[in-house]
Amino acid sequence: MRAYHKKDFPLSKIRRFIEPGPIVMVSSAHKGERNIMTLGWHMMLGFEPATIGCFIWDENRSFSMIRASKECVINVPTFDLVNAVIGVGNTHKSKRDKFEQFGLTPVDASKVNAPLIAECYANFECKLVDTSLIKRYSLFVFEVVKAHVARSPRYPTTVHYRGDGVFMVSGRNLSYRRRFKRVNL
Amino acid sequence: MRAYHKKDFPLSKIRRFIEPGPIVMVSSAHKGERNIMTLGWHMMLGFEPATIGCFIWDENRSFSMIRASKECVINVPTFDLVNAVIGVGNTHKSKRDKFEQFGLTPVDASKVNAPLIAECYANFECKLVDTSLIKRYSLFVFEVVKAHVARSPRYPTTVHYRGDGVFMVSGRNLSYRRRFKRVNL
Repeated sequence: MRAYHKKDFPLSKIRRFIEPGPIVMVSSAHKGERNIMTLGWHMMLGFEPATIGCFIWDENRSFSMIRASKECVINVPTFDLVNAVIGVGNTHKSKRDKFEQFGLTPVDASKVNAPLIAECYANFECKLVDTSLIKRYSLFVFEVVKAHVARSPRYPTTVHYRGDGVFMVSGRNLSYRRRFKRVNL
Repeated sequence: MRAYHKKDFPLSKIRRFIEPGPIVMVSSAHKGERNIMTLGWHMMLGFEPATIGCFIWDENRSFSMIRASKECVINVPTFDLVNAVIGVGNTHKSKRDKFEQFGLTPVDASKVNAPLIAECYANFECKLVDTSLIKRYSLFVFEVVKAHVARSPRYPTTVHYRGDGVFMVSGRNLSYRRRFKRVNL
């Protein structure tokens, strides 16, 4: 597993990586502990500010860490990380450090205390901006405050979860740009 | 474009088709009118009852039709429908019938008045169960009350939107079932 070389990315365009629906790895930190969880239930909720909703299961340790710290990083893994994705997803409530356990490298973020995962294609530093839907829907609403995205490849090969242990791996990328009305791009 | 042959599908398992993040086509009906919109901002919010959150832009005619009728059908198109997906996405506020315009076939649903789209791989009949997040987030919370899913192929080839006119087409499906803890499937 290699670390991607990344650059700053415009926040208003992060939908490119979230809207296609990949599994993401959410990293968090609180009171000297850090943690990672895998997450497939998320959606874009706005371009500017860049807003993402995430369903975070309350059985995960991440749930309380993110609620208390009001921060996280949403990391987009590529297919080469599928073993870590599965491994992290299998370990709820474990106190072992998941970075060490799965060979992932924490990198300091610039606007939050939660660590970036170096081996992920994209890292979105997030602030929790609305806690009012946590009780009813386990829905955390995050504003992305800083985005780091790999320079290459142009489109990441992501993993998408179908349930029952089956992943769909992202396939071809096809541009129909000329067929879109400009306002709808 | 062919119509898929479908059967009833267990509501608690529809995440298989929503969680991977495909573009969906949402059909609605109200006071003798019917409509279709394309939508990429959605997420699972619960297994039982099967709950889906959808961001519906208030510039779409579908917005008011769904809010008034409190119903819709979430249809999952496959890659062969990409022209209809783009075409429907390009036509906001048009009064033309989109079924006729794009060669799609409306089929009566069993629990809602909105029509199913015959050419889509899966059709999820939905009731709007929470309107309280529409104003703040344009977020419609739907309970799926009936699911129709094609018998074959086993996994649909779906389209996922990356923005800027680029679609990712779903690729390989790989089972890692034996590597998952049972509780996490």
